[in-house]
Amino acid sequence: MTLQGKLLIGQRTVTGTRAEIQATDPATGKPLTPVYPGGGETEVDQACALAEDAFATYRETSLEERAVFLETIASEIEDLGDDLIERAMLETGLPRARLEGERGRTCGQLRLFSSVVRAGEWLDVRIDPALPERQPLPRVDLRQRHVALGPVAVFGASNFPLAFSVAGGDTASALAAGCPVVVKGHSAHPGTSELVGRAVQAAVAQCKLPEGVFSLLFGAGNEIGQALVADPRIQAVGFTGSRQGGTALMQTAQSRPQPIPVYAEMSSINPVLLLPEALKNRGKAIAEGFVASLTLGAGQFCTNPGLLLGVKGPELDAFLAAAGEAVQASTAQTMLTPGIHGAYQDGVGALAGHPRVREVARGEAGDGPYQCQAALFAATASDFLADEALQAEVFGASALVVECADLAEVQRVAAHLEGQLTATLQLDDGDRDLARQLLPILERKAGRILANGWPTGVEVCHAMVHGGPYPATSDARTTSVGSAAIQRFLRPVCYQNLPAGLLPEALQDGNPLGVSRLVDGKREV
Amino acid sequence: MTLQGKLLIGQRTVTGTRAEIQATDPATGKPLTPVYPGGGETEVDQACALAEDAFATYRETSLEERAVFLETIASEIEDLGDDLIERAMLETGLPRARLEGERGRTCGQLRLFSSVVRAGEWLDVRIDPALPERQPLPRVDLRQRHVALGPVAVFGASNFPLAFSVAGGDTASALAAGCPVVVKGHSAHPGTSELVGRAVQAAVAQCKLPEGVFSLLFGAGNEIGQALVADPRIQAVGFTGSRQGGTALMQTAQSRPQPIPVYAEMSSINPVLLLPEALKNRGKAIAEGFVASLTLGAGQFCTNPGLLLGVKGPELDAFLAAAGEAVQASTAQTMLTPGIHGAYQDGVGALAGHPRVREVARGEAGDGPYQCQAALFAATASDFLADEALQAEVFGASALVVECADLAEVQRVAAHLEGQLTATLQLDDGDRDLARQLLPILERKAGRILANGWPTGVEVCHAMVHGGPYPATSDARTTSVGSAAIQRFLRPVCYQNLPAGLLPEALQDGNPLGVSRLVDGKREV
Repeated sequence: MTLQGKLLIGQRTVTGTRAEIQATDPATGKPLTPVYPGGGETEVDQACALAEDAFATYRETSLEERAVFLETIASEIEDLGDDLIERAMLETGLPRARLEGERGRTCGQLRLFSSVVRAGEWLDVRIDPALPERQPLPRVDLRQRHVALGPVAVFGASNFPLAFSVAGGDTASALAAGCPVVVKGHSAHPGTSELVGRAVQAAVAQCKLPEGVFSLLFGAGNEIGQALVADPRIQAVGFTGSRQGGTALMQTAQSRPQPIPVYAEMSSINPVLLLPEALKNRGKAIAEGFVASLTLGAGQFCTNPGLLLGVKGPELDAFLAAAGEAVQASTAQTMLTPGIHGAYQDGVGALAGHPRVREVARGEAGDGPYQCQAALFAATASDFLADEALQAEVFGASALVVECADLAEVQRVAAHLEGQLTATLQLDDGDRDLARQLLPILERKAGRILANGWPTGVEVCHAMVHGGPYPATSDARTTSVGSAAIQRFLRPVCYQNLPAGLLPEALQDGNPLGVSRLVDGKREV
Repeated sequence: MTLQGKLLIGQRTVTGTRAEIQATDPATGKPLTPVYPGGGETEVDQACALAEDAFATYRETSLEERAVFLETIASEIEDLGDDLIERAMLETGLPRARLEGERGRTCGQLRLFSSVVRAGEWLDVRIDPALPERQPLPRVDLRQRHVALGPVAVFGASNFPLAFSVAGGDTASALAAGCPVVVKGHSAHPGTSELVGRAVQAAVAQCKLPEGVFSLLFGAGNEIGQALVADPRIQAVGFTGSRQGGTALMQTAQSRPQPIPVYAEMSSINPVLLLPEALKNRGKAIAEGFVASLTLGAGQFCTNPGLLLGVKGPELDAFLAAAGEAVQASTAQTMLTPGIHGAYQDGVGALAGHPRVREVARGEAGDGPYQCQAALFAATASDFLADEALQAEVFGASALVVECADLAEVQRVAAHLEGQLTATLQLDDGDRDLARQLLPILERKAGRILANGWPTGVEVCHAMVHGGPYPATSDARTTSVGSAAIQRFLRPVCYQNLPAGLLPEALQDGNPLGVSRLVDGKREV
């Protein structure tokens, strides 16, 4: 498929009229063709107008129609074949196996939401039948279902060019909820975005849905994104990226005449607590597991383990030595963009130059222009507690080990942390009592708590929480990965005393959709 | 019980050191003793520190303990006996029967949440068991439950001195979720608030809970409320009141270093659509039902029907005549406060003086100082569409009938409305097709859609939605009445690969709590 360098607005391809964006091959630093002239307010307006038009139809498509649409998107993406993988490799520097895996994850995610749509749990059907004889007052018939919020703006993420980009988790869950989607594609991988966008466009046409169900915009700088979030027809925002970017979108969304929810997944250093027995019994194995997770994908994951806590002593020293050796042996990997590489260099430089931080090890230096040289640092807990800057995320394969004087200080540091996506306990049987004390602290800090694993590798399933207290995300009540992500784009509506013939199918007597329901407060399957 | 005029901070009674508040008997305009010296930053700090301390224990009380606590609060309120009713009558001007009914509603609400806590649906338990043999990668064990957000600030509402005040719906649902509550009592009914506050205090002691589970603050102006929302330990806010007040709290909550959710129920004019067949067949009966709902409690309900839409013609004229007669016959009622009465007078005065608005009827004038004289106005749809000010809520028994040229204009006006708590259809069989066209419009505008009823009288049940798009509320994804209100104070946490002995009870194999669970995406009861 030849790339056209255009915006996709409904079924049209449109040439932008603003400043262009152009991808860079991060392995070589060379620009990639085509250029993508950016869109501006006009294109935002067109895409949002189409989305609003499409909403009336799309929100009330049958469960089956919507499920088939999601499956069709998955098939269309698969049908792009190797063109997609090759372009994504060029634009991101990620290896083929990773991108093939990510494509599988992306299509699996679309198919998961397809099954979620069909199962109908998301409708959260509640029925309180009329009680005409109740004293002192009768009760009328009341029924609740969830409905789609309206058109949703999705911002593609740089680090998952497929699974959290044009047809990624945010888009899949919003479409599953019945919301049209306007994507602002990430400037780092416009070609990948165009290919996937055209796959979605084809699925829209194939399923005979209104064209405004999906649009894909590009644009340099923040202008187009801000215009999109400010557009009165947009009713929610999905974003994965930096704290600064997410915070700016939150402010725009709150300043609108009608404020709207922003689901921004922003910043996390994913603390790992090395409990004493585990450290003693298998410190070396933990060190190896840690460095494998740290350096996976050049550390460019929201769930990268960037902070480790342990009690100072020979076990922690041995752990540091083993981890340092593994870091030294780690090969450099191309980072996603020159910008991410620059920020990584700055972050690592700041730690290396910090008077209270000790450099434990650096990985192999690469010979490409934008390569991530892994880094491991250490600091004492009292120094860590004294300097908030040491909590800042360094996006890439860099981690800080915090050496605590005792277990009480481990707890103090844990309690001092900002909100996180994940918190991990490395524990053995003898650590159980300590873990029991730490869990309530960690539950307040993180959306996911792991034992004896590593936070990278986020399962797409029903129980997953990829979320957490601010600044990990803008809304700790939600997840952006897994089937519960659909709830972000829904709101409840109650129907009181509606004639049977006017009730939505989900709420009709006899349960024609076969969904689980809460009847008079009791769950019926 | 003698009123002390003090703040309740945990189990202590504390005399405020700031400007005092004092209730007024709105029937006479006379001040009521005692005065309540207000609290300031010191008292906010004390209450929040206790709430934070209590959270660690309270969030993990067993379902049974928490349920019994809610029931104990209800019993303690009932044990206040007639003292509570008499004080509330004095402070609010509301009649005995209404307040006795509201006490029943308040205690019923606490007992509903007690049953909700025991049933455990709110835990939203999801289990995705490990799949060690899965290819290409195994799946680890993942389990999700919902946990309490943290200490919650609740603002008492003036118009429900029991059911949406100190131990009202916000407090009951936050306590049910496992969140300690710091109430900022409404300045209009401090004595009623103190009595209920002491009932909650007694229940905390009786249930041997940490004292910080509940505090009650008073204060003049906005200072104490703003300080409470800004306190870093507060994790969510429940508010019922004006659009201006709610918007100010939203801004404070968003400006914190850690933004928090605000659930503000603010402003709604609750449109009623008079469909042609219904208007023709039973216009007079609808007019009587409408005026009964309009003047109930002097119209001081968030769900008061303040806007009616119909097609111009003899049927609408007959409806207006009948409604006008009923309004003229309506007796004046004492309003809750001098301030509410003043705002009502201003609002009605603005409509009466509006060049494009016609006064249809006024109710009887009262002889007390702060009495609500009902008012009915009419305007054409084109004038209504041209002036946003005509959408402003007039809190009290005032309504505007919008005369539309045809059914298409009814739809245009409906589509033009801001977000609402409710929308009502008066329809007969012959109106079904029209209703079917209107429903999708109304679903986007309102949290609750009624047929052939009136929006006042909000059932406390599982299917209720007392919420709606902005500016009806700050968060259309939630309800502040009914069992789903508990979800406002919860967030999900996922546990990955946790040893069985460390899993929270809700997530253990064998389902010891007996709650419904989503296992591998399938609902199990």
